[in-house]
Amino acid sequence: MSQYRVLIDANDEKGLVHRISTVFYNHDLNILSNSEFVDKENNKFFMRSVLDGELELREFKKSIYDVLPKNSTVEVIEPKKKNIIIMATKEMHALGDILIRHEAGELEANILCVISNYDKLESLVGKFNIPYITISHEGYERSEHENMVMESIDSFKDVDYIVLAKYMRILTPRFVEAYEDKIINIHHSFLPAFIGANPYKQAYDRGVKIIGATAHFVNNNLDEGPIIAQEIIHVNHTYGWRDMQRSGKDVEKIVLSRALKLALEDRIFVYANKTVIF
Amino acid sequence: MSQYRVLIDANDEKGLVHRISTVFYNHDLNILSNSEFVDKENNKFFMRSVLDGELELREFKKSIYDVLPKNSTVEVIEPKKKNIIIMATKEMHALGDILIRHEAGELEANILCVISNYDKLESLVGKFNIPYITISHEGYERSEHENMVMESIDSFKDVDYIVLAKYMRILTPRFVEAYEDKIINIHHSFLPAFIGANPYKQAYDRGVKIIGATAHFVNNNLDEGPIIAQEIIHVNHTYGWRDMQRSGKDVEKIVLSRALKLALEDRIFVYANKTVIF
Amino acid sequence: MSQYRVLIDANDEKGLVHRISTVFYNHDLNILSNSEFVDKENNKFFMRSVLDGELELREFKKSIYDVLPKNSTVEVIEPKKKNIIIMATKEMHALGDILIRHEAGELEANILCVISNYDKLESLVGKFNIPYITISHEGYERSEHENMVMESIDSFKDVDYIVLAKYMRILTPRFVEAYEDKIINIHHSFLPAFIGANPYKQAYDRGVKIIGATAHFVNNNLDEGPIIAQEIIHVNHTYGWRDMQRSGKDVEKIVLSRALKLALEDRIFVYANKTVIF
Amino acid sequence: MSQYRVLIDANDEKGLVHRISTVFYNHDLNILSNSEFVDKENNKFFMRSVLDGELELREFKKSIYDVLPKNSTVEVIEPKKKNIIIMATKEMHALGDILIRHEAGELEANILCVISNYDKLESLVGKFNIPYITISHEGYERSEHENMVMESIDSFKDVDYIVLAKYMRILTPRFVEAYEDKIINIHHSFLPAFIGANPYKQAYDRGVKIIGATAHFVNNNLDEGPIIAQEIIHVNHTYGWRDMQRSGKDVEKIVLSRALKLALEDRIFVYANKTVIF
Repeated sequence: MSQYRVLIDANDEKGLVHRISTVFYNHDLNILSNSEFVDKENNKFFMRSVLDGELELREFKKSIYDVLPKNSTVEVIEPKKKNIIIMATKEMHALGDILIRHEAGELEANILCVISNYDKLESLVGKFNIPYITISHEGYERSEHENMVMESIDSFKDVDYIVLAKYMRILTPRFVEAYEDKIINIHHSFLPAFIGANPYKQAYDRGVKIIGATAHFVNNNLDEGPIIAQEIIHVNHTYGWRDMQRSGKDVEKIVLSRALKLALEDRIFVYANKTVIF
Repeated sequence: MSQYRVLIDANDEKGLVHRISTVFYNHDLNILSNSEFVDKENNKFFMRSVLDGELELREFKKSIYDVLPKNSTVEVIEPKKKNIIIMATKEMHALGDILIRHEAGELEANILCVISNYDKLESLVGKFNIPYITISHEGYERSEHENMVMESIDSFKDVDYIVLAKYMRILTPRFVEAYEDKIINIHHSFLPAFIGANPYKQAYDRGVKIIGATAHFVNNNLDEGPIIAQEIIHVNHTYGWRDMQRSGKDVEKIVLSRALKLALEDRIFVYANKTVIF
Repeated sequence: MSQYRVLIDANDEKGLVHRISTVFYNHDLNILSNSEFVDKENNKFFMRSVLDGELELREFKKSIYDVLPKNSTVEVIEPKKKNIIIMATKEMHALGDILIRHEAGELEANILCVISNYDKLESLVGKFNIPYITISHEGYERSEHENMVMESIDSFKDVDYIVLAKYMRILTPRFVEAYEDKIINIHHSFLPAFIGANPYKQAYDRGVKIIGATAHFVNNNLDEGPIIAQEIIHVNHTYGWRDMQRSGKDVEKIVLSRALKLALEDRIFVYANKTVIF
Repeated sequence: MSQYRVLIDANDEKGLVHRISTVFYNHDLNILSNSEFVDKENNKFFMRSVLDGELELREFKKSIYDVLPKNSTVEVIEPKKKNIIIMATKEMHALGDILIRHEAGELEANILCVISNYDKLESLVGKFNIPYITISHEGYERSEHENMVMESIDSFKDVDYIVLAKYMRILTPRFVEAYEDKIINIHHSFLPAFIGANPYKQAYDRGVKIIGATAHFVNNNLDEGPIIAQEIIHVNHTYGWRDMQRSGKDVEKIVLSRALKLALEDRIFVYANKTVIF
């Protein structure tokens, strides 16, 4: 017996659950878990089922498409480790958290490599026998540097996700489009509160009593892609901006790892610049 | 067109969703929302659907029972205001929070009356034109006093929930059994820590850094009924136990009101001394 | 024996604590609690002490000024109920929360009156025997309406704080300047995210996973005054913006009441558009 | 110029701050930060100051003692890396979090070694060039095994703290007394809720909606030492006890690291089985 994750994204109409569950039933599948969401405003239907049984994948997928409205999307996924590439710059906390989880066997993922524009993290990554690729941006134009990074990424096959673990360079639209809905970023702020550079300094200057972090997919508008997860911690007047930054690291790493886990378990739908998460 | 809430509690078996959704489909019902949970360990299936359509209730309910295993439970509910009785002693915060929400039209509920063993809250309750019934316990044995309270409750028809908004007297098994799964209590502690009397004093003596509150259904074991909602706040060494008590009030009232809202919206299943909440 | 709260705001220099505590000692005062904060960046010193003893206030205050650098500020306050005016529009939750706390004796405050641009809350406020003053804005220019509100406020003596409990009109600089550092507002957002109108709609459109509320003093830049308190709750894709609004109310009322309590207990210093809170 | 941390623990009496700050002033010290707490109930005074200046330590300490009541305790500490030993069993998350922070230079600590009763974590620890000492308990009585562990610990000089990063063996009173107020443990529960074995299973069986973790000093009563830090996360009916365990790891590691940081920065006073934390 195998397990399958079925993800359906369709325009809503009466009878969808009936028709889909009939397909499941006819294929003699057992439903282990089932989550549905209907967005009335946009007339959209989302469903994620985990099924138990034995399947001929192509035929099964076709059977589902047959009962859905046009322009639907169906994914049938056999759970297995996904391939991820991590990009980082100089900070250790978010990268280190993923490395330890990977080492502990917590992640359904193979880390293909870590790419950085500095060599500062090479020693850490090397300890875990994961390839570390330094691609310095110095002396290059943004597009030239990005070309090299993209070449490096594309030298790997079947990359499922690119995780920006505090990668501190702005990505161009060309890069973002090349890996649409595949790039997960951690933004060191409770978005959309302090978009842009040094959010902790901004937060300090504004005198906030809470700081946060936001994991999101990256799209062409910097810091404006679909949000996956957010978390906050309380601060007070004794925190200078560097204290906020230090304290913020704990939130950043936890939120990024939480978002990555959701992605690896195929729990995220993206639409209308938002996420539906089961 | 009417709206219906369907709550199904059954032993799990293959094809349940298929069969149930077929019944929905055959009755020409539109699914507005659908939540399911399968508890593998106990082989239990729970489902809450909100449906749009026109129904002959008895026939519809029978049709669902027909496709379910034996010993299942089906409820089909037309949303309307539920009847609640509030019991309190001397403290205003939890009671006051419910009164204001009621006044603001936030609650799907009629407050039939407030019963207290003191007259201290009469002036507050009177402002809202809600009957206040003082049943003093002084000079009576516990069972005598409870008899009077039960008589008072039973003088009202169709009581859906009894809300203990800081009612500071222990209830006997007879009372609890008479209103099984109908009594919602707020316990001024993060259960099961600090069961029993003066949990804030206990918490202070233990030097905790967090205090909490727990809303739960009441069963025969004091403070051990199925938990509905819990919340906490952070405290520190500057908090004496009275400070903890004061700060705890905010958590208590929010948690109790949250639990009440879940109950009024028919979102809670109870089994195995736990709750499934959709 | 009386209790005194001493608040000192001074430029930092070596020996301040020594000199101040010597004054306390010479006046035979017992320190019940003592909080200090030095902001290195701005070279500022803040101190709040609660003292026990018997004082000639003017002489004592002068003795402290004598040991401080120029341009310092000293307040010596005998704890007593402060006078507050609440302004509201149509929503009940924040106002109701303050009314209940007031009724329960939780607040060190007299509520002089509630001013609203609608009569919708009159019935609620009337229950508590608090004057309700409706000053409709209809048919008036903003400045005309505000004149009437200010006249109404100024008809009361010794107003310590004006609490905007979801008062949904923009205040002009003239109003704000007239009551500098006296106006406490609750903003229905985690500032500075979603400044301006309908933040819940903005938050929904942005697909956030957290919503919050911010209590702050009001200054001339809308939503940009010194922040006193912030809190958040988690939301998810099932929340439409009205659900966010509904859930947000619980955070709004708790945060506003928390900020009000801090103000009433003389725990807040304001400087550099921020707050220091002891 | 050097920095000093002064920690004073005394019976409270009038004039203490005056006398102490006079000593600071006479030694020409600048106060960088100052925290005080008076526990009225127990008549205790606690103070932590960070000072800037040049000191003859012994003379300075004596000068402070001279102005304090009998039975006071004064510590004057020059900030430097403390020596810690980590004890673990098989789980990676809490240990890994400390290793990454250490590698990132976040901790004011030297890790002298990691001691475990299994060799499972040797590979991880080895990556960071930290000695790993396996002391199997198999075939030994508890006291014999503990003797070996104590010998191993005592072979290191100047051990400041022993951090139990999910060390899953019960310590005897002899061990605990040997390292009083030096052993920091992370308990995988929101103490005192689920004392003892497998708290996640206990929490699951009780149907809680919140799980937590508690960092505390270890004393002779298992799980009952002074609490340093606590944190929680929300769970729901979809969490089996293994899911709770998995999710709990994030809280455990953050709370343990937070407690360790507080200890390394000399911010914790212990008394009456509680902590005062500045």
